[in-house]
Amino acid sequence: MLVIHSRFHDYPVETRDSLAAALGGGDRERACFLVDERVGRHYKKELAPHLDPSRCVWVKANEEAKSFARLEPIFLELIRRGLNRSGSLVVVGGGVLQDIGCFIASVLARGLPWEYLPSTLLAQADSCIGSKSSINIGPYKNQIGTFHAPRRVLLIPAVLATLPSEEIRSGMGEIIKLQLLKGKKDFHELMADLAAHPGIPPVEILSKWCLRSLAVKKTYIEQDELDRGIRNLLNYGHTFGHAYEAVSGFSIPHGIAVILGILTATSVSAGLGMVPGSYFQDLRARLEPWHTPFAKKIKAMKPEEILEAISRDKKNERDGITCILTRGCGRMEKVKMDLSNELGPLVRDFIAKAA
Amino acid sequence: MLVIHSRFHDYPVETRDSLAAALGGGDRERACFLVDERVGRHYKKELAPHLDPSRCVWVKANEEAKSFARLEPIFLELIRRGLNRSGSLVVVGGGVLQDIGCFIASVLARGLPWEYLPSTLLAQADSCIGSKSSINIGPYKNQIGTFHAPRRVLLIPAVLATLPSEEIRSGMGEIIKLQLLKGKKDFHELMADLAAHPGIPPVEILSKWCLRSLAVKKTYIEQDELDRGIRNLLNYGHTFGHAYEAVSGFSIPHGIAVILGILTATSVSAGLGMVPGSYFQDLRARLEPWHTPFAKKIKAMKPEEILEAISRDKKNERDGITCILTRGCGRMEKVKMDLSNELGPLVRDFIAKAA
Repeated sequence: MLVIHSRFHDYPVETRDSLAAALGGGDRERACFLVDERVGRHYKKELAPHLDPSRCVWVKANEEAKSFARLEPIFLELIRRGLNRSGSLVVVGGGVLQDIGCFIASVLARGLPWEYLPSTLLAQADSCIGSKSSINIGPYKNQIGTFHAPRRVLLIPAVLATLPSEEIRSGMGEIIKLQLLKGKKDFHELMADLAAHPGIPPVEILSKWCLRSLAVKKTYIEQDELDRGIRNLLNYGHTFGHAYEAVSGFSIPHGIAVILGILTATSVSAGLGMVPGSYFQDLRARLEPWHTPFAKKIKAMKPEEILEAISRDKKNERDGITCILTRGCGRMEKVKMDLSNELGPLVRDFIAKAA
Repeated sequence: MLVIHSRFHDYPVETRDSLAAALGGGDRERACFLVDERVGRHYKKELAPHLDPSRCVWVKANEEAKSFARLEPIFLELIRRGLNRSGSLVVVGGGVLQDIGCFIASVLARGLPWEYLPSTLLAQADSCIGSKSSINIGPYKNQIGTFHAPRRVLLIPAVLATLPSEEIRSGMGEIIKLQLLKGKKDFHELMADLAAHPGIPPVEILSKWCLRSLAVKKTYIEQDELDRGIRNLLNYGHTFGHAYEAVSGFSIPHGIAVILGILTATSVSAGLGMVPGSYFQDLRARLEPWHTPFAKKIKAMKPEEILEAISRDKKNERDGITCILTRGCGRMEKVKMDLSNELGPLVRDFIAKAA
């Protein structure tokens, strides 16, 4: 068990053998359940004895669901099912469900306790801790949100076995990022584990790296939960990754866009002389199986559109684009760069050699 | 100057001579302004030198504005005007603007600092402190919201002089409530002040009772900011008042509905033998000028509709309707009552004798 120390309240991350074990028992007398439809389809029989339909709302999880227009009927369903300030919310799903559920729990009746059962690798390895929710508005991604720590997080490694391979590769993007942040030894150990299990690794290996990755993230969020300083480094690969996601119309899975973003940031770092070109080449070769064939999508994009999307990143400030660059494993740095004169040419250079 | 101690951060309530004085100066380099259109119309010339149009969003303040559908374009306007995590929001208006502004500031970029310049008596005397925001959803009033303390509150007594008399009477509803909560001596002093100034009292008197009322509210919110215990008593008159407001289609101003709610709660208390009938009769006579002719609206309502609205109150729990009743000035109590057997007949009795 991992305990996350939060400015709101500490919370545990525990492991359960199955969805049924995670949903059975517990102090949930007045709870309502918010469940990803996809999880419902996969685990219909297993869920049935543990989910009272009168306390359960199903959500079709996609990027569009993170909007006020789509949230409103979910709020209303939950209120009609009797959720009020003496209740709590149990959220079962991936990152989108986490964003929706955390946001709802933070503003319904001015804040309710909530629990989270992450159903994807990305959520189990990374997003499930950190207290953030993110909602989109108009063309602006993740501009609305809250900090609202869960009461607890329950990891269920078994559900990873039923995920499609693209979901696993997407989650691996954040695992790779966190181990690159940790340092050379851990990153190489991850690479060795992956090499020993060609294709999609077995659940034990995935579960091991979930816990190792949460342990890395924990050190950042406990120092800077509100993301004003060192937590920014978790954004490694994200300034570029978010732009690739947006320009692709969200057809590149988030974590795979992050891998491509990590390579972009590393290529930019090499262009600035922060790391040797050989460091970028080595990383590119290692990560290739985890993003193929999505780099092709980037190569087909107009560089101007990518740069325009980068300029809209919400972490930017008046003095330039906020990039997390690197001097090597475990040595990331926040750098402000001018888009047209400094960053633009280096990003164009990466795109040209992307695929 | 009053300082409010909050679990988020302490904040001062200061007084300024004019809107111009409140808007001029200060640390607002990256601030955006959210201003009630009505304030804009009244104070066009005074505001012009202090409000850069490129940093200002005007809002038509009414109950419908407190919805996700109406909030979305306001969020978008503020984002387009450059408001981001390094900025802040300055809110100028009455209670609706406070709700909207506080909510936006609490979820835009996961929380921004905000300042509040209340422009109504109700907001200056009561709502401006306490950190709450409230948003409506579908048929449910104030079910969405946050706790988000302002950086500071600036009171401008001068603006009270331009308010229509119904706005003053509405604000007086909350002043009356707070002084009844304080005790007999303070309530009688308020009544004497009002009797000495028939009609609408001068600004000095209003301003004096704003500060006295905030001092009462301060003692409750500092003990129980999250409204889990003693702060509930501030709801005196509100369970019934909210129902009257709703059934009237919000044609009864909030504070006037609260006065009628206070009388209902006191009549119910007398019916239960908690106060003598003479206490209710005395209070009814004293408060009559402050709610006339709105009691007539209540008398014209169907009692079933009022009871149905009471049953929807968000403070209710499974074991009955939450009422704040009274044993006299300064002696309010939270009582759970069964709607059909206990509360219903007493409310019907009040309605029958209302006007």
